[in-house]
Amino acid sequence: MVRRASRPTLYEEVQQFYARQMRLLDEHAVAEWAETFTPDGVFATQVDTTPAKGRHAIEAAAGEAASRRAAEGVRDRHWLGMLDVEEQPDGTITARSYALVVRTPLGGRSAIQASCTCSDVLVRAGGRLQVRTRYVTRDDLSAGQGN
Amino acid sequence: MVRRASRPTLYEEVQQFYARQMRLLDEHAVAEWAETFTPDGVFATQVDTTPAKGRHAIEAAAGEAASRRAAEGVRDRHWLGMLDVEEQPDGTITARSYALVVRTPLGGRSAIQASCTCSDVLVRAGGRLQVRTRYVTRDDLSAGQGN
Amino acid sequence: MVRRASRPTLYEEVQQFYARQMRLLDEHAVAEWAETFTPDGVFATQVDTTPAKGRHAIEAAAGEAASRRAAEGVRDRHWLGMLDVEEQPDGTITARSYALVVRTPLGGRSAIQASCTCSDVLVRAGGRLQVRTRYVTRDDLSAGQGN
Repeated sequence: MVRRASRPTLYEEVQQFYARQMRLLDEHAVAEWAETFTPDGVFATQVDTTPAKGRHAIEAAAGEAASRRAAEGVRDRHWLGMLDVEEQPDGTITARSYALVVRTPLGGRSAIQASCTCSDVLVRAGGRLQVRTRYVTRDDLSAGQGN
Repeated sequence: MVRRASRPTLYEEVQQFYARQMRLLDEHAVAEWAETFTPDGVFATQVDTTPAKGRHAIEAAAGEAASRRAAEGVRDRHWLGMLDVEEQPDGTITARSYALVVRTPLGGRSAIQASCTCSDVLVRAGGRLQVRTRYVTRDDLSAGQGN
Repeated sequence: MVRRASRPTLYEEVQQFYARQMRLLDEHAVAEWAETFTPDGVFATQVDTTPAKGRHAIEAAAGEAASRRAAEGVRDRHWLGMLDVEEQPDGTITARSYALVVRTPLGGRSAIQASCTCSDVLVRAGGRLQVRTRYVTRDDLSAGQGN
């Protein structure tokens, strides 16, 4: 018997979006990764003085990181969790999460490479979610402070 | 086009509650953290001979832990996952989860500080979830046993 | 006031299924663990030349692993996350996820024992989800490759 799944909630839609988006990054599908951002999407961190703006820049940055990982013989897995989603009056969606990068060297031991927070503004385009802006902060740069 | 999000399910409500609750703890908003418990809320672990009872005690314990982390220059992130939620006939909600504490020193490497299980009884108050009782067990104290 | 929970979505049903399934494994309830697979269920990895086929083989494999952990005095916790769920036209459900094994020795420090991906085909039997096939890949065997 096939049971019809009920319609996904927004929260679940965002979870599923992140699952697919992060897998694209982790498996080096950098062009498809870039398309999960809006054409004018922004990826910023508190360490980059110049954020990546637009899909071309976002793809280039992901491609460079993928090349470094391939050269080092490591696999990264980006885990997002502790997700807080809020739909805004203007229809955009704010999504705050914790993020872990788990790095595994070929034949070696996995370890946490980075503990971060991620603050996204998501929008819908053609029925699909896209990231308009992403801001990532690294805990190793703010540890010891209240927030 | 703004699509209306469908109504959140209980499971999702609990996930979102934990996301917000843990961020309050991790960012040292200890008064707001205490208010995520019922006024007579209990926070117990298998190591504390006396559980924290009531918001004042829960806030005090969180404040002490926050001060220690600030003094040590570390940031903790509490991850809850593998969540199992069941609504009880009396309207309370039992929520069992795995919990990881990921600790990051300023300028240093993140690592798992603790692997735990968390067993909560949640109730609704004024439309919001609150923790009535929380019981946390640490895996380093029970490893090697079946359960 | 008791609020009725809305009906669970498929995504949430899968999350809750995994939460319960992994807890059975981690707490060494290996007979109940085996029953979360279909009678002819298959558990395969890229390291086992012969996959475990059927509940008896799956239970036996889990029992051996549980005995090893008990002998070593360690506790494992299996975390699944970054879940991507798709219902197929034939009514089966494909579920892809990231998986971490967090190992804790008695009195010692927790660490990541393995970073994996998990690819399941789930089916419904008597209203409950079961795993028909599971394929697990370990990142330490494929690190440095694109996918």
